[in-house]
Amino acid sequence: MPQEPADDIVDATYRALCTHGYTDLTMQAIADECDKSKAALHYHFDSKQELLETFLSHLLDDFEEHLADVEGDDPVERLFALVDTMLVEPSAEEDAPDAEFKTAVLELKAQAPYEPVYRERLTLFDERLRDRIEELVADGIEAGLVVPERDPEDVATFVKTYLTGAQTRFVATGAPFEESRRLLHEYIRTELLVEGVDVKESGEVTA
Amino acid sequence: MPQEPADDIVDATYRALCTHGYTDLTMQAIADECDKSKAALHYHFDSKQELLETFLSHLLDDFEEHLADVEGDDPVERLFALVDTMLVEPSAEEDAPDAEFKTAVLELKAQAPYEPVYRERLTLFDERLRDRIEELVADGIEAGLVVPERDPEDVATFVKTYLTGAQTRFVATGAPFEESRRLLHEYIRTELLVEGVDVKESGEVTA
Repeated sequence: MPQEPADDIVDATYRALCTHGYTDLTMQAIADECDKSKAALHYHFDSKQELLETFLSHLLDDFEEHLADVEGDDPVERLFALVDTMLVEPSAEEDAPDAEFKTAVLELKAQAPYEPVYRERLTLFDERLRDRIEELVADGIEAGLVVPERDPEDVATFVKTYLTGAQTRFVATGAPFEESRRLLHEYIRTELLVEGVDVKESGEVTA
Repeated sequence: MPQEPADDIVDATYRALCTHGYTDLTMQAIADECDKSKAALHYHFDSKQELLETFLSHLLDDFEEHLADVEGDDPVERLFALVDTMLVEPSAEEDAPDAEFKTAVLELKAQAPYEPVYRERLTLFDERLRDRIEELVADGIEAGLVVPERDPEDVATFVKTYLTGAQTRFVATGAPFEESRRLLHEYIRTELLVEGVDVKESGEVTA
C-alpha cells in the first residue's frame, strides 16, 4: 500500500503549479520544489496526473473545512462571507491564493474533458460549494431573512455558476474581483433578501 | 504587406483546435488541415500565437455580426434569444460550436495571463457582449418591459459573468447548458422584467 504523501509534496505541487502552470508542470519541477529526487516522487505517484489527483483531494479537504467554518451571526451573513472568500483579490489577504494558482486551476478545468480524474475532483468541488450555499439559503428562509419563494438548490447552482464565471474572467481578462463581488452582493440583496433586511458594509445583517 | 490569410486557414485552425486542443496545436497540424505546407503557413504567420491572434479576430467579427443579428420582436425577446445562443448544447443545432472547440477556448483563456494578444482579444469579446446586453436592457427599460431601477451596465456585466461561468462549468464538469439556461431565464424574469411581463416558452414576450 503506498504511503500517504507527505505534506511537503502537496506544498511543492502548489508552488510548482504557480511557477510553471499546469501545462509545463513536470515531476522534476515538483521534485525540485521539495528537495526530493524524481525517483522518490515516483515511489508515491506513477504520473503527474496521479499526483495532481491527490493534490486536488487535499485541496478539496481544505475547501470543505473552509466552507464549514465560514463566519457570521446568521445564515445571510455567512452567505455573504462565503461568496466573498471566493472572490478575493490575490495577495489582498495573506492566505489568498496566488493569481498564478488561479490560472493553473483554470488550466486544469480545461484539461478535465481529457482527464476523467480531474473532472471527477472538480465536480466534487462544484457539488460541495452548491450544497453549502443551498444550506445557507434554506437556513436563511427558515430564519425569515430570505424570500421563501426562492428554491435553495436553484439559487445555489446559479450563484455557483456566477462565482465560476468571476474566476474565469479574472484569469482570462483580468476582470477585477471587486466588481464581481459588488454585483453579486446586489443580486443577493435585491433577489434573495426579504424586504427590510439589509447587510452593512461590515457584513452585519440588519432587519 | 502580408496578404489577408485565406478563409481556409481560419477554417483549418478551427478544425485543428477541435482535434488537438490548444496545448498540442502545432503549425504542422493546421497545415495538414488545409493541405498547405508548413512553409506556406509561415509566409503569413511567424508563430502559432500570431496565427491564433488572427483566428480570434475573425471569430470576433463573426461574433459581432451574430450579436447584431439576434432576433426578436422587442428588446426582451432579443435578450432571451441572445443568452440562449450562448448556452446551446454542442451539436444541438447545426452551427453550434463543437464541445471540443469550447474546451480549446477555455485553454486559450487559461493562457491569457501569459499571452497578452490573447488577453486583448478575449477582452474585446467580453466588451462586445457586455455592450450588446447593456443596449438590450436599456432598450427594455425604455419599452417599459424592464424595471427602470436596474442599471443596464451592471446587469450586462452580471449576466456576462454568469454566461462565462456556464461555459466553464460545461467544460470542467459537464454541467448541462439546459440547466444554466433555465436558471438565467428565471433570473431575467424575476429580477429584470416589470410585473406582468412574461416570456413564453416560444420566446414571445407577453405584457
